[in-house]
Amino acid sequence: MENPKKMDPAGEARTCMPEGERTAGDPVSDVTARIDVPAADLAEAARRKIDGKTKPVGSLGLLEDVAQRMCVIQRSLDPVTEKKAVLVFAADHGITKEGVSAYPSDVTPQMVLNFLHGGAAINAFCKHGGIDLDVIDVGVAYDFTDVEGLISKKIAPGTRNFAKEPAMTRTDAVRSIEAGIEAYREIAGPRRYHLIGLGEMGIGNTTAASAVIAAMTGVPVPDVVGRGTGVDDEGLRRKIDVIEKALALHRPKADDGIDVLSKVGGFEIGAMAGAALAAAADGVAVVLDGLISVAGGLVAWTIEPKSAEYFFAGHRSVEVGQSRALDTMGLTPLLDLRFRLGEGTGAALAMHLIGAACAMVREMASFEDAGVSGKA
Amino acid sequence: MENPKKMDPAGEARTCMPEGERTAGDPVSDVTARIDVPAADLAEAARRKIDGKTKPVGSLGLLEDVAQRMCVIQRSLDPVTEKKAVLVFAADHGITKEGVSAYPSDVTPQMVLNFLHGGAAINAFCKHGGIDLDVIDVGVAYDFTDVEGLISKKIAPGTRNFAKEPAMTRTDAVRSIEAGIEAYREIAGPRRYHLIGLGEMGIGNTTAASAVIAAMTGVPVPDVVGRGTGVDDEGLRRKIDVIEKALALHRPKADDGIDVLSKVGGFEIGAMAGAALAAAADGVAVVLDGLISVAGGLVAWTIEPKSAEYFFAGHRSVEVGQSRALDTMGLTPLLDLRFRLGEGTGAALAMHLIGAACAMVREMASFEDAGVSGKA
Repeated sequence: MENPKKMDPAGEARTCMPEGERTAGDPVSDVTARIDVPAADLAEAARRKIDGKTKPVGSLGLLEDVAQRMCVIQRSLDPVTEKKAVLVFAADHGITKEGVSAYPSDVTPQMVLNFLHGGAAINAFCKHGGIDLDVIDVGVAYDFTDVEGLISKKIAPGTRNFAKEPAMTRTDAVRSIEAGIEAYREIAGPRRYHLIGLGEMGIGNTTAASAVIAAMTGVPVPDVVGRGTGVDDEGLRRKIDVIEKALALHRPKADDGIDVLSKVGGFEIGAMAGAALAAAADGVAVVLDGLISVAGGLVAWTIEPKSAEYFFAGHRSVEVGQSRALDTMGLTPLLDLRFRLGEGTGAALAMHLIGAACAMVREMASFEDAGVSGKA
Repeated sequence: MENPKKMDPAGEARTCMPEGERTAGDPVSDVTARIDVPAADLAEAARRKIDGKTKPVGSLGLLEDVAQRMCVIQRSLDPVTEKKAVLVFAADHGITKEGVSAYPSDVTPQMVLNFLHGGAAINAFCKHGGIDLDVIDVGVAYDFTDVEGLISKKIAPGTRNFAKEPAMTRTDAVRSIEAGIEAYREIAGPRRYHLIGLGEMGIGNTTAASAVIAAMTGVPVPDVVGRGTGVDDEGLRRKIDVIEKALALHRPKADDGIDVLSKVGGFEIGAMAGAALAAAADGVAVVLDGLISVAGGLVAWTIEPKSAEYFFAGHRSVEVGQSRALDTMGLTPLLDLRFRLGEGTGAALAMHLIGAACAMVREMASFEDAGVSGKA
């Protein structure tokens, strides 16, 4: 596909509001203030209900933990997953100028259009799982004017090349988080979802996400970098080199998610962080996907650690950095299908398992109800 | 629940037809003769179609292999999984007299009734996944006369105690396989399923299945035995001891599935083998579940190795013997949720993934169709 509407980030004027700490009254602080961790007594009641079901205690393994967490998150012993959505945030990355991706940046808008036309993997998986799909442009270097079905929250047409300068201003980093909050509210507000998955599209974004994860976890760069969409050995070495030099150049503060995001992140990473915070504030479970989605979760977690109480790890990605980030947040992946695609594909499939866990708690008989004998 | 209708296997008359090799014209041979392995050219065409989809080649990992195999199995580049069923075969086990299970044998009929009333985990998972559920009695020590919804193919009310004597005659081993073939035909014949899952219920059956797997794979007994529904350390040692002594006593022939089945198996293991062979003969994919289901698959595989071309491993069980049996058949599990329940629960959940793989092949756009650029 040609890309006649390609936009040049260098040509765009940027808002340059004063930097500094966020204050009460701004959208991010308003959301984080609403994130609550429910009382432990509900966790105990949920565990008792699950243990009373007609099966050996613990025999449904990880799904029992999922079921318990869903009870706690929904503050109900009859959790539901009927209404589900995957939100796909798309953006471009200046770092692609360093030759870190196997595909050209043109693929970002091409894939956005593919999502809108129903032709991508995430379309097939969402349709298969009864999941709504929404696509949000937060920074694609393409003019989507008159394209139907796309939600526009564009910050700028792509980040700057973080090998040379910060990916974005701190103000734009905050704006990307706010874009995610707004998108979540517009989408989920009217439809009141039980489960939200976070996916993305953006050529170059495994480099940005790996840089974010390395900066925030302190894990050495070679241990968080993978082949993305499929770079060769030389491309992999280049990615590692680019990230190591960028971290040395910008020195992002590990405990300041917004600082890390502004220096080596991406607009979709910030937007996913915002959507994750907004869902957590609403008491809605969030299913993270692959490397980039989990980097977004990590940014949210740094801003408000309680948010991770609402997160599920949909799957373990082939991208090694994703596992390091999940470990940091204490999340165990539900699937390990050797995916390395993104788009929310792993999150979409994991929703079926979360739904099964909830069905188990709601619908299974207890030993008492069914008249089944206990252990000998 | 009381068990007033409990039946005593010792009191039952057994059919004792002459043993010997099966001949053309008998149900098992008729089925195995119809199992066909499709030509490799379809596998290549399927791989080309999958590789042309708008995603990096190989980025959907294991699901791409599943999709390719479903194309080959259904002899179509547009495979479907719309109509699905889990068949749960139930039977009792004389070996429980050796104290190898954490639950009393009464739980077998109690759980069968629980299945029929919709209260078990497999009910919740099947309903959640749009999967039909059928329950077949092939050897429960309970009189289910007048119980609605149960398919009866009872061979005998439980096996004999294989610590003392063979679990069943060779004739009954063949009959158990035939029972599975008949049940499959009655259930699947009118409804023409695209996907069949095999589950089971039977207190004591992890001991029988572990013995079958040890006998057929040659793996040392301690490496195939787990805690089943939850025996303690002493119970685990007792299971290992019972199986080692039984294998020394009966010396089953590793390459003769019917011999192994008759000496240390169970009626539900034979019936699952029969259903697996019958589905393979119909060109229908079979999703195996945990330890006992996979032992049934292994018996089918020994009778006709081509049958495994139609098998999927639904999940990796906590029961270690299951993985050894899957390795023997070259099957990779789709899920690893630390399940140790059986009933077909892992198979039921895996069906969603197989369905997603098929949806991917059917519905995703190609790079060409969507106008998406290839690798740079």
